[in-house]
Amino acid sequence: MSAVYLAQYWLQAPGELQRPSFSTVPVLANPAATAVCRLYVDCDLNCAFTSAFLTARVHPDDPYEVTRAQELNQLLGPKASGQAFDFVLDLHNTTASMGTCLMAESAHSVFAMHLCRHLQLQSPELPCRVFLHQLPGEESYSVNSMAKSGLGLELGPQPQGVLRADLLVRMRALVAAALDFIQLFSQGTAFPAFEMEVYRKVSSVDFPRTEAGDLAGNVHSQLQDQDFEPLRPGAPIFRMFSSKDVLYEGESTVYPVFINEAAYYEKDIHCLPPD
Amino acid sequence: MSAVYLAQYWLQAPGELQRPSFSTVPVLANPAATAVCRLYVDCDLNCAFTSAFLTARVHPDDPYEVTRAQELNQLLGPKASGQAFDFVLDLHNTTASMGTCLMAESAHSVFAMHLCRHLQLQSPELPCRVFLHQLPGEESYSVNSMAKSGLGLELGPQPQGVLRADLLVRMRALVAAALDFIQLFSQGTAFPAFEMEVYRKVSSVDFPRTEAGDLAGNVHSQLQDQDFEPLRPGAPIFRMFSSKDVLYEGESTVYPVFINEAAYYEKDIHCLPPD
Repeated sequence: MSAVYLAQYWLQAPGELQRPSFSTVPVLANPAATAVCRLYVDCDLNCAFTSAFLTARVHPDDPYEVTRAQELNQLLGPKASGQAFDFVLDLHNTTASMGTCLMAESAHSVFAMHLCRHLQLQSPELPCRVFLHQLPGEESYSVNSMAKSGLGLELGPQPQGVLRADLLVRMRALVAAALDFIQLFSQGTAFPAFEMEVYRKVSSVDFPRTEAGDLAGNVHSQLQDQDFEPLRPGAPIFRMFSSKDVLYEGESTVYPVFINEAAYYEKDIHCLPPD
Repeated sequence: MSAVYLAQYWLQAPGELQRPSFSTVPVLANPAATAVCRLYVDCDLNCAFTSAFLTARVHPDDPYEVTRAQELNQLLGPKASGQAFDFVLDLHNTTASMGTCLMAESAHSVFAMHLCRHLQLQSPELPCRVFLHQLPGEESYSVNSMAKSGLGLELGPQPQGVLRADLLVRMRALVAAALDFIQLFSQGTAFPAFEMEVYRKVSSVDFPRTEAGDLAGNVHSQLQDQDFEPLRPGAPIFRMFSSKDVLYEGESTVYPVFINEAAYYEKDIHCLPPD
């Protein structure tokens, strides 16, 4: 709810977002889902920005989010065109204990990586991890990819439907710092080269399910709230309702994120590809 | 989700709930709301068990929860009749940091108060507060009141739509201990008199809202997660989006509960009284 309330506030009072060298437009990305306090109506909006969805012929039976992705592409893009917005800052919350996480597509997003560095240096006392979410060879699919460059903020933990003061203040400060960075860049400020620790996506692991697709176990107590902490081969990751533990069977240490995120309980949250 | 998954599990495997001297029936109280992962479909079920709702003539336009309350009254009651179930244990979760909270109607619920004492003694290392939720002169309105006696368990914090291992284990252990207590009672065990600290409801405070009913501020960072901690006159309770603080203006120290509970963001969650 941090992002939803901030967007609604800025739509009434946009002055806070303005800087001398550029203008900023607040957008509530999924107003239909916001109205019913859900992540989405038909499927996850933030996976619907592939060229297959954006160029599909409009059909009255299209999922709401596919239609909305096309609208946002008109507003912020068109994707990969010269007319597209210069930058999109995409604001998210999670029920997982991810603290402040900066979601970039890849390390090749140079402008976004410099922004990440700038945000980390603003509050060195707070962990502010960088997560690269694009798999090698994968097409960009997020709302950021409508613009020439972009970055996602993922703040948690916060329950769905709840507005926590700490995350609201943190998100507002991060947005202000990001706008200040763009202002510095536009003024010609030079940003030195740097080295940075990043996390990159390896794969996704679904909840254990029955054949019918219902939940068959829960995230193990030893893994709960351990986002960005090392998970070693053989450590428990789920406990089945039958009391059996499921262990991590990979060969190398990984650093799980989005642990027990509420939005991932549902199966098949992705929009079905158009015909 | 702790209570929902436990109920679904027990419906498949009811043996865990059985004791020699009595039988136990698991009931999923609001299956339509469970199916859409919400607290309710039309209005809060747990306020719909007043005699006005239970005796109202059935109408096709009735809210789902009013119809469901009448069904549960047939199953567990009828309320205040000799045929009613002896005991209802009503399992809940909250997004508030309430730890383990036992919800009894009043200190006159002698059986429930002895059960509270028994549960407190089972895990003396964990805070296990007793909250008396009925205001003086108020009619009983909860699902517990269908039975001759009852108790609610309120465990948190847990986001809506999430199943946390710690709360699942805790709720399952509390239910087992409650059934063991009833078994001891049925066998003729005597329970000595005791003194106990309880919290009782004084009043409810809604979120600050605009004239249109939209949220106009958030729970103050100094109050967030401070359930059952003393709130003194003059302390901040909300921060308006305009940055002004709202202070607690009462004359005596109180102990807030359900701080920033997700279900209370919506206005008018109560079922409208029947004509």
